[in-house]
Amino acid sequence: MLEKISLQTLQRLPVYLELLRQDAASDNISANRIAEELGLTEIQVRKDLAAVSDAGRPKKGFVVTDLIADLERALGYDNADDAVLVGAGRLGRALLSYAGFQRYGLNIVAGFDTNPRAWGQDEVSGKMIYAMDKLDDLCRRLSVHMGIITVPAPVAQCVCDELVGAGCRAIWNFAPTHIRAPGNILIKNENMASSLALISHHLRRNLEEEA
Amino acid sequence: MLEKISLQTLQRLPVYLELLRQDAASDNISANRIAEELGLTEIQVRKDLAAVSDAGRPKKGFVVTDLIADLERALGYDNADDAVLVGAGRLGRALLSYAGFQRYGLNIVAGFDTNPRAWGQDEVSGKMIYAMDKLDDLCRRLSVHMGIITVPAPVAQCVCDELVGAGCRAIWNFAPTHIRAPGNILIKNENMASSLALISHHLRRNLEEEA
Repeated sequence: MLEKISLQTLQRLPVYLELLRQDAASDNISANRIAEELGLTEIQVRKDLAAVSDAGRPKKGFVVTDLIADLERALGYDNADDAVLVGAGRLGRALLSYAGFQRYGLNIVAGFDTNPRAWGQDEVSGKMIYAMDKLDDLCRRLSVHMGIITVPAPVAQCVCDELVGAGCRAIWNFAPTHIRAPGNILIKNENMASSLALISHHLRRNLEEEA
Repeated sequence: MLEKISLQTLQRLPVYLELLRQDAASDNISANRIAEELGLTEIQVRKDLAAVSDAGRPKKGFVVTDLIADLERALGYDNADDAVLVGAGRLGRALLSYAGFQRYGLNIVAGFDTNPRAWGQDEVSGKMIYAMDKLDDLCRRLSVHMGIITVPAPVAQCVCDELVGAGCRAIWNFAPTHIRAPGNILIKNENMASSLALISHHLRRNLEEEA
């Protein structure tokens, strides 16, 4: 079933799941109600959910507990992905210690940094931060296939190459720069500078219109 | 000039700027070189940059310092946006103390939280965290028009409503849920759960193919 899900549907699934988790006291929920809550069309909701679940019943709607289980399975939350994080600065440490990731099937096993002062156990997260020369061995030993990049932009490509060399097949990049990898490696950019560009542009237009 | 920029172009501008800042030692850079470095087409690069700069010279390419200044102006980095942040948990505190935002024209003036234990000066960022009942007054007094939401999903909508009520016209939402606001308010979702859904899906397909 997995390969039939579009990328657009896939990115909406966590939003459905979050709504249902908030609403877990109800036995049933209709596609119409979900659509209203999320500002989507009912057709869109039916199509998205049909791709991952057959918990829908005519006139009754979806059985909430079944739909939650189907969404969790489709999202792989029943089988967490292990990841390593490179770059134990402020953002990196924040992600290391962010408890919310466990709810989304992500387990960051360790951090890496070039700075010897960062090495050792991180106080907040309790996770170990190692020197870069330990990266390859740890990724292979624990079969880690995902790397998170939180280093400054100028060294992000070099770190990406090391992660790919260590066997990572997916890279989550928080460095505000474009990085490249072979075609079979997924790179997901989390470019907060791009988000801020949109926000700032909106604010300036909005305030100009008022002036 | 501002209103002619497409949202797609706007989101690429910080990536161009980052590349140029890395390369600030050169006097000139060609559109072709930029395209190669970023994995874009030359036509795309020319079109994007023409929307914000006339620093391009035939055969010589772009004057790097001029192009940097034009990009910074187009992105509003010369005139930082003030913002408030609601939700001083781990992610919220990390964003409060993230020095990188200053480079992107964002100045978070204060944090807010319902938990009295969070109130006072944040140790890491040095910024003040206030009770929620101070939100409206502070936003109006300092003319803050941007709110950042880092609260748990179930209370995100309520916080959004308070921010809009206090005069915010743009909301940067890190809560993994859908929130709504009137049409003139921009909501930019930073849904890390959606990113993780893509990554996890890629990894499972990749590993299945190998098995």
